[in-house]
Amino acid sequence: MATIIDGKAIAEKIKGEIARQVEQMLKRGMRAPHLAAILVGDDGASMTYVGHKEKACAQVGFKSTVYRLDKHTTQKELLSLIAGINDDDSIDGLIVQLPLPEGLDEQSVINAISADKDVDGFHPFNTGKMMLGLPTFLPATPYGIMTLLKESNIETKGKHCVIIGRSNIVGKPMANLLSAKGDGADCTVTLCHSRTPDISHFTLDADIIIAALGHPKFLTRDMVKPGAVVIDVGITRVEDKSKKSGFRLQGDVDYENVAPIASYITPVPGGVGPMTIVSLLKNTITASLKKQSL
Amino acid sequence: MATIIDGKAIAEKIKGEIARQVEQMLKRGMRAPHLAAILVGDDGASMTYVGHKEKACAQVGFKSTVYRLDKHTTQKELLSLIAGINDDDSIDGLIVQLPLPEGLDEQSVINAISADKDVDGFHPFNTGKMMLGLPTFLPATPYGIMTLLKESNIETKGKHCVIIGRSNIVGKPMANLLSAKGDGADCTVTLCHSRTPDISHFTLDADIIIAALGHPKFLTRDMVKPGAVVIDVGITRVEDKSKKSGFRLQGDVDYENVAPIASYITPVPGGVGPMTIVSLLKNTITASLKKQSL
Repeated sequence: MATIIDGKAIAEKIKGEIARQVEQMLKRGMRAPHLAAILVGDDGASMTYVGHKEKACAQVGFKSTVYRLDKHTTQKELLSLIAGINDDDSIDGLIVQLPLPEGLDEQSVINAISADKDVDGFHPFNTGKMMLGLPTFLPATPYGIMTLLKESNIETKGKHCVIIGRSNIVGKPMANLLSAKGDGADCTVTLCHSRTPDISHFTLDADIIIAALGHPKFLTRDMVKPGAVVIDVGITRVEDKSKKSGFRLQGDVDYENVAPIASYITPVPGGVGPMTIVSLLKNTITASLKKQSL
Repeated sequence: MATIIDGKAIAEKIKGEIARQVEQMLKRGMRAPHLAAILVGDDGASMTYVGHKEKACAQVGFKSTVYRLDKHTTQKELLSLIAGINDDDSIDGLIVQLPLPEGLDEQSVINAISADKDVDGFHPFNTGKMMLGLPTFLPATPYGIMTLLKESNIETKGKHCVIIGRSNIVGKPMANLLSAKGDGADCTVTLCHSRTPDISHFTLDADIIIAALGHPKFLTRDMVKPGAVVIDVGITRVEDKSKKSGFRLQGDVDYENVAPIASYITPVPGGVGPMTIVSLLKNTITASLKKQSL
């Protein structure tokens, strides 16, 4: 039976470390890190996510400011707000909650955020720095997974890692980070996706599998080599009348049947999910320390 | 016996197409594309490369300007020259020949080039756009290989491509481009490197192999599946007294023994090499057309 990677516990531990770092900053006469978030419109999930981020900031002693804009906000108004925040020296990090309402151009909004404040790691300049192995803000989910592997003391050097899914926010950056040089990386990485004819051909050869395609219970027991490390990034909402909300979160892994043969596995929920906000906090304190040391 | 991919012939063909495009531009009242190159110091190979680029520009009707700077040029002087070229509306593309003499910081020099004129595709903003699948200038060698595969009508969709070598200028961008969505891509990509314990385990499974590690004759016949496509990016200078220069270029593939079992193969020289300058010309005309259409 696999060791369960307790993302929630690891996330809490790291939040504790960040809170202590903030205390140190205050003692040294610095101000607390300050994260700004822009929320446009009234999408329920987006409102929930922004709420979780506000709460996490409060937990570790960060200041946070949420700019709530009407769903009819124009591109020009949004870009103008971003420009103002870019110029505001009291703000260290800025995130714009995605997706944006129709009519707004996400890529130009992302490009408008100062790369120095892009704590989501979505700006192409930061994506490029990541790919080139230069220090930068890593995107939340990949950064969270890298941290989970490290905190669980999972050996990556020389291991074959198979990633399923080639999204810009998970699959592609994961492939890049795990194949990079250095501790916690140095994997031989195979990136599989919708055009891979037989994904099990690759997963059966994998020491580490990262399932990030958004297809509930896609990774079944017959696709996994006994002893593999299995990281589940999927969080699809599936109907569940037994829940008050009417749904539950389902991962990309058939957990019940895969867990008995894996060496390590992340549950859904409570695996990768809790780590994403921790990544955002880590990027924000990094931005703040850099800014206040200039 | 493999079909030999004649990079020189394909490069000449594309140069002909570019020359005709330039004629069209002139007829429409536009000016010819203009590439600027900065060469610092007196490194022999660098001087040769810059000379080849000037010659290629002349062949297709581009204007080119080479700024030759003393090897004792300071970072400040170099950055100041770049800033001037960035602001010069008569120049479409700017490349700085690497490596730079000791004492100059390559990354800040690259970052100083306007992303709109970065026809080498080395600026992190452009690297990031490439990774995110946004239109941008692709780096020369990967762009050249993508063109070779396309011009040779080699099917890539759903194929397993194994890349050996994780450099920033070849291996990593190749992995990204070949695993992207769309025609000429859609490969399942495995990126192998110095920490991969048994590279032949992966290459023997590959439909397409891209050898880009800089180790002469690394890829031997026993590592290749019969019928595979073999792309050789290596260009190591090895001593050869029978040559006037005293050396010859040796690829990463044991060509003599691999060619008989491959379906397609690139020779060295005359395979990938001639395509890199073509990529630079393609990026420069793209930059010029965009600039002059604004």
